[in-house]
Amino acid sequence: MFAPLGGVGEIGMNLSIYGLGDERRRQWLAVDLGVSFAAEEHLPGVDLILPDIRYLVEERKNLAGLVLTHAHEDHYGAIIELWPKLKLPIYATPFTAALLEAKRRSEPGAPEIPVNIVALGSRFNIGPFDIELVSMAHSIPESNALIIRTPCGNVLHTGDWKIDPTPILGDVTDEKKLRALGQQGCLALIGDSTNAVRDGRSPSEADVGKTITELVKAARGRVAVTTFASNVARLRTVAMAAQAAEREVVVVGRAMERVVQIARETGYLEGVPAFRPADAYGYLPPNKVVALCTGSQGEPRAALSRIAADEHPEVTLSRGDTVIFSARTIPGNEKEVGRVLNGLIEQGIEVITDRTHLVHVSGHPRRAELAELISWVKPRIVIPVHGEALHLSEHAKLARSCGVPEVLQCRNGDLVRLAPDLRIIDEVPAGRLYKDGSLLVPAEARTVADRKRLSFAGCVSVALALDGKGVLLADPELDLIGIPERDRDGESIEDAVYDIVLDTVEQLPRGKKRDADAVAEAVRRAVRAAVAQRWGKKPMCHVHVLTV
Amino acid sequence: MFAPLGGVGEIGMNLSIYGLGDERRRQWLAVDLGVSFAAEEHLPGVDLILPDIRYLVEERKNLAGLVLTHAHEDHYGAIIELWPKLKLPIYATPFTAALLEAKRRSEPGAPEIPVNIVALGSRFNIGPFDIELVSMAHSIPESNALIIRTPCGNVLHTGDWKIDPTPILGDVTDEKKLRALGQQGCLALIGDSTNAVRDGRSPSEADVGKTITELVKAARGRVAVTTFASNVARLRTVAMAAQAAEREVVVVGRAMERVVQIARETGYLEGVPAFRPADAYGYLPPNKVVALCTGSQGEPRAALSRIAADEHPEVTLSRGDTVIFSARTIPGNEKEVGRVLNGLIEQGIEVITDRTHLVHVSGHPRRAELAELISWVKPRIVIPVHGEALHLSEHAKLARSCGVPEVLQCRNGDLVRLAPDLRIIDEVPAGRLYKDGSLLVPAEARTVADRKRLSFAGCVSVALALDGKGVLLADPELDLIGIPERDRDGESIEDAVYDIVLDTVEQLPRGKKRDADAVAEAVRRAVRAAVAQRWGKKPMCHVHVLTV
Repeated sequence: MFAPLGGVGEIGMNLSIYGLGDERRRQWLAVDLGVSFAAEEHLPGVDLILPDIRYLVEERKNLAGLVLTHAHEDHYGAIIELWPKLKLPIYATPFTAALLEAKRRSEPGAPEIPVNIVALGSRFNIGPFDIELVSMAHSIPESNALIIRTPCGNVLHTGDWKIDPTPILGDVTDEKKLRALGQQGCLALIGDSTNAVRDGRSPSEADVGKTITELVKAARGRVAVTTFASNVARLRTVAMAAQAAEREVVVVGRAMERVVQIARETGYLEGVPAFRPADAYGYLPPNKVVALCTGSQGEPRAALSRIAADEHPEVTLSRGDTVIFSARTIPGNEKEVGRVLNGLIEQGIEVITDRTHLVHVSGHPRRAELAELISWVKPRIVIPVHGEALHLSEHAKLARSCGVPEVLQCRNGDLVRLAPDLRIIDEVPAGRLYKDGSLLVPAEARTVADRKRLSFAGCVSVALALDGKGVLLADPELDLIGIPERDRDGESIEDAVYDIVLDTVEQLPRGKKRDADAVAEAVRRAVRAAVAQRWGKKPMCHVHVLTV
Repeated sequence: MFAPLGGVGEIGMNLSIYGLGDERRRQWLAVDLGVSFAAEEHLPGVDLILPDIRYLVEERKNLAGLVLTHAHEDHYGAIIELWPKLKLPIYATPFTAALLEAKRRSEPGAPEIPVNIVALGSRFNIGPFDIELVSMAHSIPESNALIIRTPCGNVLHTGDWKIDPTPILGDVTDEKKLRALGQQGCLALIGDSTNAVRDGRSPSEADVGKTITELVKAARGRVAVTTFASNVARLRTVAMAAQAAEREVVVVGRAMERVVQIARETGYLEGVPAFRPADAYGYLPPNKVVALCTGSQGEPRAALSRIAADEHPEVTLSRGDTVIFSARTIPGNEKEVGRVLNGLIEQGIEVITDRTHLVHVSGHPRRAELAELISWVKPRIVIPVHGEALHLSEHAKLARSCGVPEVLQCRNGDLVRLAPDLRIIDEVPAGRLYKDGSLLVPAEARTVADRKRLSFAGCVSVALALDGKGVLLADPELDLIGIPERDRDGESIEDAVYDIVLDTVEQLPRGKKRDADAVAEAVRRAVRAAVAQRWGKKPMCHVHVLTV
């Protein structure tokens, strides 16, 4: 039995749960607990989107544990915020556990979170679930697929993966173990659909290495490279490129420093010469340095944005230097990335992106890789997850064309029975929470919707002091925010609204004047209509009536 | 002499002015007057960005006229709004003039705008400027480059163009005339940089025609195609594909109907069988219809969005039908397009986009085309316009590598002297106006900035009635908008703020209580701090103090 609670129908926020048992007693296993980023959805003031885990909270006593496939935010980013509501055992491999711990330490007030560290490729039990890790190549060290063995059959949960015979770092995708699963029999494959619309195979990390090495060699001035800090293979690639060009690597940005330290501790930078701290940058000749920077998404406070704005205390770039964007732009960040990019170009700095050079590759499988995995594992069922509707649908079609007997497309929250027969048997709550400031707000709450309305048409507040008979005791007070000052004829909109407030109160029938609610409502309507007449939009409006 | 006022350093909002004369008497020619769309810039409540034309208004008496190169919104979309401030003669070819007139008629209250219609390829004078039109292939009929002949030399203003030997419709790019200009001598080429980062040549419109014809032939159910209405060649392509599959074309959406009518009147749909109105759709068998729809950008009120949401009165689609997105997604519209796309896919409708099939091509020149134009025209100077910094910089590098003697990169507002020597001699005002509701607001005004602040942290308004001694005469009134209801401990934030307002007023020293401004400021600070403590964000706050 199986329920994809999250990660179906969108890119971020992965959370799946697997169940065993019948209606009287079910036991659950959770896989991943990720966040989604709000930028793409134009949710103003929202930093992150988290899964609403009320179903897990209800079922807590039947929930045996949580396995993390890898340490990308969309797979593990909600743990610090949500674990205190569940307090369940977590299982993760060493690098994932170390990154989680480092992240936790960097957030003031974050709770202690015990993690059971499991070895790469190991097999262990969580409650009734017999779990085996399968190493998969991906854009972070230690990405794991899970084989979940149950009396009803064996399930392969792929996590994020690709096939890369030369991944620079870490294990290649464990073809042997996956083929063995195919021979033992695989009931269902629950798999990554991110690149299911792309033909062929992803280029290898080694190809990126070649390009970056050439670019660094050809550069005459300083070189800065920005990438996702967690892509340790890429950090290694940059280090090797620097070494080949007899340059030293300077690490700039806190997230980058954190990952570098953990990668050293876990052995993923073995053989790589020591990096230099940012304050060494100023002492190195331009043709002897490569700055490895945070800020590939144009984040305004990250290293690269500050360098581009010439506001970094230690690192500067100028005409003739080179910046390599070794990352893709996550949808929603185009404007921020564009600002950094254009700022650099206007200073005469050479900018290289993946639009013209192979300086980045995706960590997800394209169609030939998806087909190859299916040929290894020979699943009876395929359920596409992790992707938008288009990706899921293409993955489903591909699986059918590969001869998979049963392919099921489901949505977030669908509870799918895998055995004895394949069927959606229920829908469980699978909403979203917004991280808004320091609070978690349900997506259904009006908070963010109200702010969107404010951003569209601003607001007016009015205050009136009335006596018991509805006579004004003071001049009305008025405040307009986010509304143009003057109308088409150059007249003040605020002055016009003021006059309309006075007129409205004056012209109310005597009976209504005594009713504070009636006064407020009449003034509110009049104010909105008056602004709409001059501006074409109706602002939000609140009228305070103080009866003295 | 030359001044790119707009269109440099961004995609939209093209407006260039060319000048002749010295400091005592200059005469100006304006080329294009376009808008930019606000979606990409996250400007809430702003529909369009227009150029701030205060410089043209100041120089009006020296401004001889405005030539429109073609009828795309980023080249002519600001005319209806801004022409009344200039009332200058406009020159345009027949299709451009007809679209402008139809657009004007569709906007209630728009002024009459006289247009001088000039023939394709014609030569005419505007003030001291001798102008010749050069037909260029592009994604709309009648895109024109301008040869501007002056005693100081000949300038080529390319407008938007590509080289397409099989453009389906209209003239091919007029190589002969451009080569002749090269022989006469070209002082400067002012040219489109949109695709300057893309190698090779753009595919032809005829290639798109082949793909769409195959797709329509292969479809079993209904077919809907969405594209930019102004791309008449594409409409023709779709009509031909429908004919080849023995299907009829139904036109859905007002913008599409408008362009179809004008294209018929101007002869651009000659030989194409008559289209059917939307109400014919229901009577045609599924395999006998192609719906040509507006809504390629996911616009919520356009035909395709309403069809996808099953809210269109006449047109429906269901499982097994096919939708072809024959357009690119303009940056900033990804979310809206994604919503329509996913909605269709979830209904089991086959969706085809340019991510997997050649169902759209750009109308702008890639690098090989840019180089070819330079080889024809042999300009002494190249000034890249129309593109972001990256595109301008790549265009400049390409021009240098083609051996152009002088290449100048400039910014919006730079006044460039082209002869006798090349130099930036001044900077003229070149700001932006926002179309916000029915008003035009300067980009520097706080209106939109305030709305952004509201969207980030909401607002609080407080009303207090005090007597002359600062004693509260009624319970304070409070309104919170866009702020979460409860804090981390489940306590009401509004209740907490209410208590803090009371405490703050009570604890003020007697002297300050009598000063309404001091009371307001103290309460404002206390409210913002109280919300920040519970939420981590400081809302905007206005305190009304009514002294009775």
